[in-house]
Amino acid sequence: MPSPSLLQQLISALRCLPGVGAKSAQRMAYHLLERDRDGGRELSRVLAQAMESIGHCSRCRTLSESGLCRLCANPERDPTQLCIVETPADQAMIEQAIDYRGCYFVLGGHLSPLDGIGPKEIGLDHLDERFAEGEVKEIILATNPTIEGEATAQYIHDMAETRKIKTTRIAQGVPMGGELEYVDGATLAHAFRGRSEF
Amino acid sequence: MPSPSLLQQLISALRCLPGVGAKSAQRMAYHLLERDRDGGRELSRVLAQAMESIGHCSRCRTLSESGLCRLCANPERDPTQLCIVETPADQAMIEQAIDYRGCYFVLGGHLSPLDGIGPKEIGLDHLDERFAEGEVKEIILATNPTIEGEATAQYIHDMAETRKIKTTRIAQGVPMGGELEYVDGATLAHAFRGRSEF
Ligand SMILES: [Zn+2]
Ligand SMILES: [Zn+2]
Repeated sequence: MPSPSLLQQLISALRCLPGVGAKSAQRMAYHLLERDRDGGRELSRVLAQAMESIGHCSRCRTLSESGLCRLCANPERDPTQLCIVETPADQAMIEQAIDYRGCYFVLGGHLSPLDGIGPKEIGLDHLDERFAEGEVKEIILATNPTIEGEATAQYIHDMAETRKIKTTRIAQGVPMGGELEYVDGATLAHAFRGRSEF
Repeated sequence: MPSPSLLQQLISALRCLPGVGAKSAQRMAYHLLERDRDGGRELSRVLAQAMESIGHCSRCRTLSESGLCRLCANPERDPTQLCIVETPADQAMIEQAIDYRGCYFVLGGHLSPLDGIGPKEIGLDHLDERFAEGEVKEIILATNPTIEGEATAQYIHDMAETRKIKTTRIAQGVPMGGELEYVDGATLAHAFRGRSEF
């Protein structure tokens, strides 16, 4: 076997993208090489920079280029309301869909004891420190409406209760078993307005 | 407006890939950042290298890292048979699907006078020089079975006729109006076997 050609290497590297199989990776490679080399070069450049420079916010754990994300650094956001989500994508979805003025906490997943993902792995020690600061008055649990998301919400609710912090859970309109990231904006806005005491 | 964040730049750079809209670009960016930074780094590296180092074969015009592609440099390929295709993807498709032992010529498109794409833009001057060398005895026209592909095939047939070179056209089984790249291997093999005098 000769070593794979650069074209073959490119096709195989493109398959790291979600939803991209052998056939579409091939189409992408040919498209860039034959019709959009500038686009390919730009993608390479931004990709390298993003992989190196984007870390996590030290306060809310979302993806951020700086130690403190733009949202946490914004004095106009209400620090007494804290919306808790599983992923940065969920946070972005909420920001785009509704007029929420509070802050966020991004878990980066959900509790999954069988996979070794306990409270610490999703930053709950960090979240408890934040509760201890005393500034947070209400948490809005916006974890996914799945079994794992519900269990995670329950766990965080118990933590908040110990600290005498009010807990609400987004509820109405979010279809059970679905992924928050794929819910349309109107449904999500409705779920937010219809949140209830946990 | 603040300048776009690196995350926003990454999402927009990913949209240069064919078939990738705003929503899947966002999913890809989050996937790489949260779950596959090594994959993202590798893609960036290979992409940059491919955009710089992959050029075109000086003989058959296909994509190639070296001045002469592996196939043109292979003494076991029959230089008397020349299969003419529109794109490197079509060539790759034929190589994968059937046991063809001849050589190729890659046009890089088809005649399209309204878009300013004439014979020279698809390398037909170069192809005629190759005909003049006298080595080619048969050309197999494997341009797309579209109106433009047929017109291009007709034009090349006329060129070959002047040079007394036999012309065949792949025919049976290739669905009219379709793109060669998306035809399954069996259909393509059938079309090859069933080729007829042009
Ligand atoms: Zn933050
Ligand atoms: Zn070649």
